Amino acid sequence: MAKKRIAIDMDGVMADLNQHYCDWYFERTGERVTKEQLKGLPETTGFPQEGIVHHFLHTPGFFRTAPVMQGSQEVIRALMEDYEVFIVSAAVEFPQSLTEKIDWLKEHFPFISWKNIVFCGLKTIVKADYMIDDYDKNLRYFEGERMLFSAPHNSNYEDYNRYDTWEDVAKFFAARQVEVAG
Amino acid sequence: MAKKRIAIDMDGVMADLNQHYCDWYFERTGERVTKEQLKGLPETTGFPQEGIVHHFLHTPGFFRTAPVMQGSQEVIRALMEDYEVFIVSAAVEFPQSLTEKIDWLKEHFPFISWKNIVFCGLKTIVKADYMIDDYDKNLRYFEGERMLFSAPHNSNYEDYNRYDTWEDVAKFFAARQVEVAG
Repeated sequence: MAKKRIAIDMDGVMADLNQHYCDWYFERTGERVTKEQLKGLPETTGFPQEGIVHHFLHTPGFFRTAPVMQGSQEVIRALMEDYEVFIVSAAVEFPQSLTEKIDWLKEHFPFISWKNIVFCGLKTIVKADYMIDDYDKNLRYFEGERMLFSAPHNSNYEDYNRYDTWEDVAKFFAARQVEVAG
Repeated sequence: MAKKRIAIDMDGVMADLNQHYCDWYFERTGERVTKEQLKGLPETTGFPQEGIVHHFLHTPGFFRTAPVMQGSQEVIRALMEDYEVFIVSAAVEFPQSLTEKIDWLKEHFPFISWKNIVFCGLKTIVKADYMIDDYDKNLRYFEGERMLFSAPHNSNYEDYNRYDTWEDVAKFFAARQVEVAG
């Protein structure tokens, strides 16, 4: 039987962009803003120096140097044994990020083939059974199982099953496996 | 009612890559190979100097300078009035081509938004109602209407409805419109 397909977002899910905003902000301004302080605020806002974090997104090297979300490597690698995993990033908005993202994936997720990488604009085009994403705008039109990965900017969302960590994601799929096997 | 969605391939469909191979080959070797001579041969083969055309694919500037397929601009622009059009290119195999392809689209198809551009590996991830492509490997797993755009390398395919030109594509959709309206 064909494996079920999981579409996994990069920014905020595999790459801890929010931590990266805080780190770059600290390095450039000397001011420490924490992820905790960003809760409930639109992404890239909540920093005293307005607009600077949005500017980071257009700065060469920003995506290439993002920290890996804790647990994502181990869990995704394990999921690939039982599922067809596609990485789906709405990256076409930031053309300079495309090659950086490929290089980032090669470094941190060398077990993922280029065949399973998708860069798009709207994610309405994606056909999969599961979608792990931190944005309502991406999950909303998805017809499969919608899995919200927690991020400061989505802390107020109430319409989705929420996963705070990759450990939570692993537990969800482990429970399904037991269900199927039983 | 939501518009039906058309997924359109770039290489060999919007961009006349086969003509581009012949032109670059002529410029670099002085030998003229025509598209007619490439009929039935695997893409990038059929040139006396073996391997050179495959090398073109990895050469900076190759995708950026590809000629536009005749009629594609007018027909795609017209289709966008009645359909949701996504450009879907299996470009992640050639990372250097990604920004070139975005720039190429901006120049020749400025009416297409970044939101409707998809760069992927496998096209199995694509959800659409129609797919216009020159490859069996892309069309084979597609569940909607499969539309084979003629290219030298696919001249032997017999399993698909074939469209030799963008005028043929326009005629197909014009006929459907009459059908729907009637």
